[in-house]
Amino acid sequence: DAEVSTRKKTFAEVQTERLDQAERTVLIKCPSKLNEKKLLQYLSSHGNVRSHFFFENRGISALIEFSEKSSIASLQDAVGIPSASEYHVVPFKSRLFTFTLKKPVSQYVEETPLHLSPQCHIPVKDLIEKLCLADSVSSQMYILLNEYQLTEENIKLRFLACSLVQDFARAYFPDSTVKPFGSSVNTFGKLGSDVDMFLDFRDTGKHATKLKKGPFEMEYQMKRLPSERLATQRILSVIGDCLDNFGPGCVNVQKILNARCPLVKFSHQPTGFQCDLSVSNSIAIRSSELLYIYGCLDSRVRALVFTIRCWARVHGLTNSAPGTWITNFSLTMMVMFFLQQRSPPIIPTLDQLKELADEKDKHIIGGYDCSFVSDLRKIKPTKNTETLDVLLGEFFEYFGNFDFRKNSINLRK
Amino acid sequence: DAEVSTRKKTFAEVQTERLDQAERTVLIKCPSKLNEKKLLQYLSSHGNVRSHFFFENRGISALIEFSEKSSIASLQDAVGIPSASEYHVVPFKSRLFTFTLKKPVSQYVEETPLHLSPQCHIPVKDLIEKLCLADSVSSQMYILLNEYQLTEENIKLRFLACSLVQDFARAYFPDSTVKPFGSSVNTFGKLGSDVDMFLDFRDTGKHATKLKKGPFEMEYQMKRLPSERLATQRILSVIGDCLDNFGPGCVNVQKILNARCPLVKFSHQPTGFQCDLSVSNSIAIRSSELLYIYGCLDSRVRALVFTIRCWARVHGLTNSAPGTWITNFSLTMMVMFFLQQRSPPIIPTLDQLKELADEKDKHIIGGYDCSFVSDLRKIKPTKNTETLDVLLGEFFEYFGNFDFRKNSINLRK
Repeated sequence: DAEVSTRKKTFAEVQTERLDQAERTVLIKCPSKLNEKKLLQYLSSHGNVRSHFFFENRGISALIEFSEKSSIASLQDAVGIPSASEYHVVPFKSRLFTFTLKKPVSQYVEETPLHLSPQCHIPVKDLIEKLCLADSVSSQMYILLNEYQLTEENIKLRFLACSLVQDFARAYFPDSTVKPFGSSVNTFGKLGSDVDMFLDFRDTGKHATKLKKGPFEMEYQMKRLPSERLATQRILSVIGDCLDNFGPGCVNVQKILNARCPLVKFSHQPTGFQCDLSVSNSIAIRSSELLYIYGCLDSRVRALVFTIRCWARVHGLTNSAPGTWITNFSLTMMVMFFLQQRSPPIIPTLDQLKELADEKDKHIIGGYDCSFVSDLRKIKPTKNTETLDVLLGEFFEYFGNFDFRKNSINLRK
Repeated sequence: DAEVSTRKKTFAEVQTERLDQAERTVLIKCPSKLNEKKLLQYLSSHGNVRSHFFFENRGISALIEFSEKSSIASLQDAVGIPSASEYHVVPFKSRLFTFTLKKPVSQYVEETPLHLSPQCHIPVKDLIEKLCLADSVSSQMYILLNEYQLTEENIKLRFLACSLVQDFARAYFPDSTVKPFGSSVNTFGKLGSDVDMFLDFRDTGKHATKLKKGPFEMEYQMKRLPSERLATQRILSVIGDCLDNFGPGCVNVQKILNARCPLVKFSHQPTGFQCDLSVSNSIAIRSSELLYIYGCLDSRVRALVFTIRCWARVHGLTNSAPGTWITNFSLTMMVMFFLQQRSPPIIPTLDQLKELADEKDKHIIGGYDCSFVSDLRKIKPTKNTETLDVLLGEFFEYFGNFDFRKNSINLRK
């Protein structure tokens, strides 16, 4: 099925496909009583709509994915700038629109409520009710996973948030991209989690060595700075100001430029996400891909991780408030290590993944070999058939008896 | 000749032509010993070069005007990004380039010095020498005008400075334009004067009323602010930061946002201009056009203005330092009024220019009728044949006997 065929794609393929999809997407605020067909009929005058869904977030919004990017320019050209005497607008034309019906109410009004795709998980009370109806702990763990994991629609919305920020970055740096990393893409994200995004300039330098064969050189005049960190800070600072001043629904913009990893935090009201924008970090991208691979290999991996994280949260071991809590990332690493230690192992070690890597999988970062296979088909499925109930019990058994003073965990092994 | 045919164009025509020209123009830093033909030969591989000149400004630079705008994209695609271990660049790709010759010195080196187009007026000492050789006061006044007025090349450079700032504004506001106003365009500018430029959003609103005929409205989501002034401040602030952080050679950027007319001041090293960027001010544009018309009507107008301003400066009546001096603008108004009072008048009153205005010349600003004719051919040449020596003497006579306590001057009459 579609789920499986998606899962077999490499991390890079999924990222590219999602980013492309997001660039063909717009977001439209709608009235709650709307004839869906009429809206789609109007939009189709600008091009074929490949997919769409409605969701609730400060009112009703529709995410519309066109088949062609050119449809967006066509739509943008037809859309008006709001005008009223009581306010003045910053005329930045984004891919965020508002659709309003005029009075008297027209054929565009529809009494049948729109189907709304949920963008947050069900309340704990409802979850517990569902879990009580399950016939086994394994079933409960899959129910938990299905209720908490990111939906197809939520992932689209996350990539759209990145793509909208990318529009700001590309205004000045046409070769740059803004991509999500971490929980939005590593298959371990929970509905409601923040969107971590980074600005990538890697393609910008592709022409750097051109023209050097002739008797002369022609270069761009560019601002020169003594360090890459300073350049990063300057660029993030300006993009933060642009989001703050021009970005519709970009609020609470905070520039945290003196952190080890400079970033801009902001709330993106149109998609409803809390976002952290930083600059490309190779290690974070490799970590996202590694977790993506582990998450795709066996359905038990994600179910166990979601369960352990839920358990840890309920027992106060993790907390979203700052403090010396163990992090979800560390808990996830513990689960991965545990799954590598099963007999037979459920997931391979990092060294085994490295052995399967080919030339294009090669990544050396800061002198460390961070290579591992990207093609999931090259990894043999596990022979381990333990059920999730057994694995959950064994996980507690394993770390309950783990001598943390003498041993440490290492996914590379 | 070309000068006369330029002079007969309307202010709007000249502005449009110059802005278009500037958008097809790039600036290249060059080594001082350069084979001009070889450079042009290389550039012509990207398209036909319509005009070019060299000038000195922190080294040698070439202004290159292509026939087609597409040549710039072609050139930009071929140009490299500077790279060195001792600095990091902000990869903003502008129309400012550096051309360097590689060692060993090649056929691109030329011992014949390049012809450099002067961008500042001759020293006063040299001017006085020239004036001493003239056979009349009239001739001296024309010499002064010719030495001090903006050259064709200097005007091109001013429009280029605006066009480069426009690239920044258009990154976010594709319909915006940045245009020079005041002395850069009113025919009364002196070499070395600042470039006053404004950011114009007037075209942005053109689609505002579209789509309103259907049963619904589709609008952009945009940042809303309680006043136009606040929107202006926000936009200028961000563009100021962009220039400061991304603009090659944009230095000493000062944001003066709480002034009556919010502005951003900066030094633009590549063109050598001190620039003031503000937001479209209809009155300032009309003033520029009115002076343009007066300056074009009769060659004596500009010669007399340049002479009076030079005299006032030498006698300490005007000063570039802040203070309660009379301004060059006021002196210019005095000359205009004086020329309207001659018998027969040398220039028409504003009311006479208004009578000649047609429908498209209509401008009502803040309730005031600021209409006047734009087509210079509609204005009858003066029958007055007084020489400049006579007019200069009469000017001093007129204002020497003017009762400033009882009377005031009014160009409208």
